Amino acid sequence: MLTPHPSPKKPDTSIYERRESRVRSYCNAMPRQFNRAKGVWLEDNQGGRYLDFLAACSSLNYGHNHPVLKQALLNYIEQDSITMGLDLFTDAKAAFLDALENCILKPRKLDYKAMFTGPTGTNAVEAALKLARKITGRRNVIAFTNGFHGMTLGALACTGNEGKRKGAGVSLPDVSHEAFDGYFGPDVDTAALLERRLEDSSSGLEAPAAILVETVQGEGGLNAASFAWLRRIAEIAKRHGALLIVDDIQAGCGRTGHFFSFEPAGIVPDIVTMAKSLSGYGLPMALTLFRPELDQWKPGEHNGTFRGNSHAFVTAAAALRHFWKDDSFASTVRARGTQLQNRLEQMAQAHGFTTCGRGMMRGINVGTGELADVITSTCFRNGLIIETSGADSHIVKVLAPLIITENELNQGLDILENALNAAMAKPLSIAAE
Amino acid sequence: MLTPHPSPKKPDTSIYERRESRVRSYCNAMPRQFNRAKGVWLEDNQGGRYLDFLAACSSLNYGHNHPVLKQALLNYIEQDSITMGLDLFTDAKAAFLDALENCILKPRKLDYKAMFTGPTGTNAVEAALKLARKITGRRNVIAFTNGFHGMTLGALACTGNEGKRKGAGVSLPDVSHEAFDGYFGPDVDTAALLERRLEDSSSGLEAPAAILVETVQGEGGLNAASFAWLRRIAEIAKRHGALLIVDDIQAGCGRTGHFFSFEPAGIVPDIVTMAKSLSGYGLPMALTLFRPELDQWKPGEHNGTFRGNSHAFVTAAAALRHFWKDDSFASTVRARGTQLQNRLEQMAQAHGFTTCGRGMMRGINVGTGELADVITSTCFRNGLIIETSGADSHIVKVLAPLIITENELNQGLDILENALNAAMAKPLSIAAE
Amino acid sequence: MLTPHPSPKKPDTSIYERRESRVRSYCNAMPRQFNRAKGVWLEDNQGGRYLDFLAACSSLNYGHNHPVLKQALLNYIEQDSITMGLDLFTDAKAAFLDALENCILKPRKLDYKAMFTGPTGTNAVEAALKLARKITGRRNVIAFTNGFHGMTLGALACTGNEGKRKGAGVSLPDVSHEAFDGYFGPDVDTAALLERRLEDSSSGLEAPAAILVETVQGEGGLNAASFAWLRRIAEIAKRHGALLIVDDIQAGCGRTGHFFSFEPAGIVPDIVTMAKSLSGYGLPMALTLFRPELDQWKPGEHNGTFRGNSHAFVTAAAALRHFWKDDSFASTVRARGTQLQNRLEQMAQAHGFTTCGRGMMRGINVGTGELADVITSTCFRNGLIIETSGADSHIVKVLAPLIITENELNQGLDILENALNAAMAKPLSIAAE
Amino acid sequence: MLTPHPSPKKPDTSIYERRESRVRSYCNAMPRQFNRAKGVWLEDNQGGRYLDFLAACSSLNYGHNHPVLKQALLNYIEQDSITMGLDLFTDAKAAFLDALENCILKPRKLDYKAMFTGPTGTNAVEAALKLARKITGRRNVIAFTNGFHGMTLGALACTGNEGKRKGAGVSLPDVSHEAFDGYFGPDVDTAALLERRLEDSSSGLEAPAAILVETVQGEGGLNAASFAWLRRIAEIAKRHGALLIVDDIQAGCGRTGHFFSFEPAGIVPDIVTMAKSLSGYGLPMALTLFRPELDQWKPGEHNGTFRGNSHAFVTAAAALRHFWKDDSFASTVRARGTQLQNRLEQMAQAHGFTTCGRGMMRGINVGTGELADVITSTCFRNGLIIETSGADSHIVKVLAPLIITENELNQGLDILENALNAAMAKPLSIAAE
Repeated sequence: MLTPHPSPKKPDTSIYERRESRVRSYCNAMPRQFNRAKGVWLEDNQGGRYLDFLAACSSLNYGHNHPVLKQALLNYIEQDSITMGLDLFTDAKAAFLDALENCILKPRKLDYKAMFTGPTGTNAVEAALKLARKITGRRNVIAFTNGFHGMTLGALACTGNEGKRKGAGVSLPDVSHEAFDGYFGPDVDTAALLERRLEDSSSGLEAPAAILVETVQGEGGLNAASFAWLRRIAEIAKRHGALLIVDDIQAGCGRTGHFFSFEPAGIVPDIVTMAKSLSGYGLPMALTLFRPELDQWKPGEHNGTFRGNSHAFVTAAAALRHFWKDDSFASTVRARGTQLQNRLEQMAQAHGFTTCGRGMMRGINVGTGELADVITSTCFRNGLIIETSGADSHIVKVLAPLIITENELNQGLDILENALNAAMAKPLSIAAE
Repeated sequence: MLTPHPSPKKPDTSIYERRESRVRSYCNAMPRQFNRAKGVWLEDNQGGRYLDFLAACSSLNYGHNHPVLKQALLNYIEQDSITMGLDLFTDAKAAFLDALENCILKPRKLDYKAMFTGPTGTNAVEAALKLARKITGRRNVIAFTNGFHGMTLGALACTGNEGKRKGAGVSLPDVSHEAFDGYFGPDVDTAALLERRLEDSSSGLEAPAAILVETVQGEGGLNAASFAWLRRIAEIAKRHGALLIVDDIQAGCGRTGHFFSFEPAGIVPDIVTMAKSLSGYGLPMALTLFRPELDQWKPGEHNGTFRGNSHAFVTAAAALRHFWKDDSFASTVRARGTQLQNRLEQMAQAHGFTTCGRGMMRGINVGTGELADVITSTCFRNGLIIETSGADSHIVKVLAPLIITENELNQGLDILENALNAAMAKPLSIAAE
Repeated sequence: MLTPHPSPKKPDTSIYERRESRVRSYCNAMPRQFNRAKGVWLEDNQGGRYLDFLAACSSLNYGHNHPVLKQALLNYIEQDSITMGLDLFTDAKAAFLDALENCILKPRKLDYKAMFTGPTGTNAVEAALKLARKITGRRNVIAFTNGFHGMTLGALACTGNEGKRKGAGVSLPDVSHEAFDGYFGPDVDTAALLERRLEDSSSGLEAPAAILVETVQGEGGLNAASFAWLRRIAEIAKRHGALLIVDDIQAGCGRTGHFFSFEPAGIVPDIVTMAKSLSGYGLPMALTLFRPELDQWKPGEHNGTFRGNSHAFVTAAAALRHFWKDDSFASTVRARGTQLQNRLEQMAQAHGFTTCGRGMMRGINVGTGELADVITSTCFRNGLIIETSGADSHIVKVLAPLIITENELNQGLDILENALNAAMAKPLSIAAE
Repeated sequence: MLTPHPSPKKPDTSIYERRESRVRSYCNAMPRQFNRAKGVWLEDNQGGRYLDFLAACSSLNYGHNHPVLKQALLNYIEQDSITMGLDLFTDAKAAFLDALENCILKPRKLDYKAMFTGPTGTNAVEAALKLARKITGRRNVIAFTNGFHGMTLGALACTGNEGKRKGAGVSLPDVSHEAFDGYFGPDVDTAALLERRLEDSSSGLEAPAAILVETVQGEGGLNAASFAWLRRIAEIAKRHGALLIVDDIQAGCGRTGHFFSFEPAGIVPDIVTMAKSLSGYGLPMALTLFRPELDQWKPGEHNGTFRGNSHAFVTAAAALRHFWKDDSFASTVRARGTQLQNRLEQMAQAHGFTTCGRGMMRGINVGTGELADVITSTCFRNGLIIETSGADSHIVKVLAPLIITENELNQGLDILENALNAAMAKPLSIAAE
């Protein structure tokens, strides 16, 4: 088993100071220059080694540079296969669609068509919103408190975070933000509140084209909706003529222990957005899936130069065939999720905190961003890359690669537990130094 | 010299019919399944070979799978270098920034900071719009007739095309569309019209945060703005407190014979957006450049999962170092541009048509989309991949890779000339069969 | 005591069919042609006489053509006093401001400045919204479910009614519709829900420029907010930097037994909008009142041709001096309100219905618009003009002139009670005939 | 003939300082307190007398307190006729509709239905915009540079003036501002520019629901569109499926020498908005007229409390019957318009200025607002009420009541001419003192 050993000093960052916008963020908390990565491990260019509990925000569910995907990609490149294919027919795209059909859709009895949008999550969301508005002829979209769906104006309008929204500099109309499951505490049924307003023709809540929901809110604090609530939302959407869009960009691709996060809830969304871990290798790729009857696009009505990123098709097809040919991988992920939950629960209880999340996207709510920051900083100094989530960055979030072993997961959680204990052992002012 | 020889029959497309949205477009006009590509050549999976005059809409300025870039990428992958780096410091990002500084910015005495947005052009545009609105505290943005800037709501609002705009299903506010250079014919100075309205406090044209312009409109009909007009627009922007944004996504990276399309006009935009050929290899990558004083972002204020696409950094850095260490490549491109212009002019004059464009992005205006379609279809049947541009798809557009040889360019232009002559030799109704 | 005796037959409506838009509404339910009116009585042009429980939607709180106001108006007109004064200084305006100061503001220790907007309620609301946005630099406004604030786009955006909103044909942005007091039943504290979302920077609810509220929702179903809730809302507004706007257009001018409806709640709004009964005679007049510190308008920044309707100033000043020199009128109104409440409660309980409202704006919730329609139609056939309220027109609403006598009020309520009993005595299908 | 003799000193304005918002504007330039008015004369409360060349911004085309209208109104009030009628059938409304039909519509062979909106011009415009959007299913509306249509958000979006627009505090979407006739000088055909963009599916100009135009821009600088241009605009609207809305609020009711300003242009708008002089007596009243086929409103879809202002119906009907029973009044107005034009032209030429306007709405462009202010201030000191127009208030505007006699008109123009000559005789810095 490898040991994390961070490098002691910060790298020369003058080129970044000179030439890169200070909009960058992760590097502020993790000031090292990284160069190599394999599985759950990252290395910096001074020989430091880090255990990765961030997985590029769930974009590396199969770890860094997985050997099977790597080999497929190398072969593809070496043969001068097409790299950039716009939306032409290519062997790479056909292979991906075939894998999608056979490894994912058929076993789950799902009948979806795939739209290759520009290869970013926000683009997949924008396409979904357009389609829902086009089909229903309605403008309003219901999104939820703490939802996060992207940074371009259409998706940003659905995002709750104030700091991100202010970046727009313009109004973000045509979206209503409703309360997510549990938002007002355990005693308030937020689905009932929503339905009450939709049924009232004088509530000011306009009939929605779509209800856009994450089953587990990745950026918004790892809030996991109950399956009952999700079913209620699906029913409400249906009853009120709205399409149900599940944004599975962060929670999909196995993160919750199922390929799609909505599977165990027993719902079938009209539209699903995917990105992040879709290519399996961290390469840009996004997808908007929808029921075939909804495929009412005109050719090119929504397009994007890089919608035919063949390298991503290759690694994505390899990932689907390698990890999703049967349930064994998902089953392991679920086991690992239970392991994670048990240990987090233990840590949380020791200090009167609570846990949140589902499957392999879980966290501890430590109450304040200040404390969470002390904990994650300590972790980083001990070789664990880990980040926070939530409006106030008050959730310490574990998003380890799904291929992590039981031992490695414990190894990281030990670092986390020590950091938590240390932070709680002394006044915050000292801990923060 | 290779010979184009298209394969005679259409491929089995059943997987696409079943599983891919019909939003796809290029494959409709080019119904073959492609698999390999090198330089200016594409191959389909039945052994057909095609000369590429589309270059993935100017995303493959250095051709398909350029060997230098390919080798850099293979080396990078083989060593398990970081693929997905969010916005962490990585060797790959540092190397790219270094190449950008030394090969591009310094020789041109440009002082820009680089913002890595989500790796699509539309994302770079959205970031530019946000920044301009944030800095000026204004909402309105001036864009131009026939401008094309992307498909997400913020960028789409700046795009002129009606079909694309209708896809939104909502209003696209906070943008004024003004007349591009020459839009009302040679006798109307559209910059003067714009200035008149900006100077009039009662014109209804709100003070703009930015003027967003392409120097050559790639999708909008290969309209090339005169340098004088561009200078006028730059002055107007400055005088009225607006930032000048040049969208160089299609015209940049050497397409006009200069790295930035605005260089010969002698203007220095406040913000520049780049994508398409930036990675050099067709990999998704986008960049928003701006003057250092404008770098007023808060960390993470605009972000995106795939903003650290390291593979693209690697090929982009290799491309900058290989092609832009001095002026020799650009000089060759300009020569090829002259060759192209001469031949297109000849063809156009033979039939009373006109040409348009600049450098290596040029076309013939054949008057109707119907005729243009006959011509490009004939070309495809003869092994030349070529597309149209403009509101009515009435421009036959040549966007060959910039690394094309004199002979190859002539080879393709011969096919085009024959197709044009054939189309003009018989009534359109017959030609269309 | 006068007796209602409606005229038996409908008038010739051919001129309306030919020349008036069918957007008209009240005349559909009350198909008579009216010509004279005095106090609480209306007459049609065939000699029919009607008791008025509508009071022009609370625009005739002092009844029709009150003799004191009438005489003041006749004197004014006869002397060729200025009718139309734009926003010039006039004797009429000075007299009104003096009456406002001495009869209304001083006794209540309120310090407001008056803005004469265009003489419609919607215009007063638009002015209030502009001012709040100007002062706070924010865009979002919080309005409430079932709120009704006007038909022009700014005010309509704050209105809940779906049918009215659809008339816009465009999006109605920059307003969030939150739940009014009691909206989710007695167990849900809607002020707490609102505050929770305002305190959460990731709720998607943007920081508001204003909270716009009616203390009793006149069109939205006679929902009366509790005083405690109003105080909570006032505190929330203050804490979150929003201005509190009370729309007192329908509930003001004594309708609830106080000149301003918010007086007994013990709150002091930052801005108050007034119209309807302000002129006292049914003449068009509107006012936006605000704290002097908020008077940050530039001259003419919001204007309107008829903002100096002198006839209305004259009757308004006369009304303030006649009815509001001391508390005696208000005291009588409160007594009448109690009388109304007692009888409505009795009727409601007899059939298992509930009552709603406050002061002299009260109603019975009969459950369905269909039943309410049967009841009000019967009333009209018996000489009582009475209308419905609420999203489904399911509230039978009593808005009698405030100068009604105890006997007249009973007279009308007898007609209502009989109509209610009759409607409940037989199946709805028969009753509807 | 009466003589203007202004009162020497300013009135006590303390009540206004204390209690009226400083949004007021006209009183700043005319600091007297007015009390009586008759015909073309105004009196202040210190005995000063003023000739009125403002006519309440064209709201008093028949002068102040016209005796015929006055008597009709007094009779109506004395008989306790209905003052406030919502949209009930009333004798007063029927009489007005009858007068409208017989005096206006029939003689002009116009077939319109009348919608009584809230009694302000902005409300009539909002209703027109809603109807156009509803009927066409489109959102965009084309308005013109320097257009002025009202202050509520929907109408304000169509207004060009920057100061007014900024008052909104929010974006004003769904309107495109195009160049009015002559806006770019005599050599640029602005109708052609508009049509070019409408015909181009990639211009960014969305297909309009309506084209909203004033034939003479009252607030925007007295710009009179040529009849040929108006016909072009009408054709363009028709060809592109847009409704033509003529905003005749200021130019209608005879101001140009015809009841509707568009009559001599030979066009028939789909929708016409009216207000200002409609009631004839300065009472608030507004109307939206449209072709019967367009009457697709649902009952109450657009409403407003004061839409049944019976006093205004009475004076309006009297005015139509008195002034519009035949062409004699209009003919006199046209003669007076010629007189006005001759004298203004003379004055203008004497100083190298130009004139503008049509009929009895004309002005002199004196180049700067500073100079115009000096002139109108001098006029006021000499007993002439006169105002400016245009984006920079650089037009001295004559909007005298239409019933003015030849002598009175000359009397006022003499004062104006003297003021102009005086202002030009000395340096501006001295003149301004």
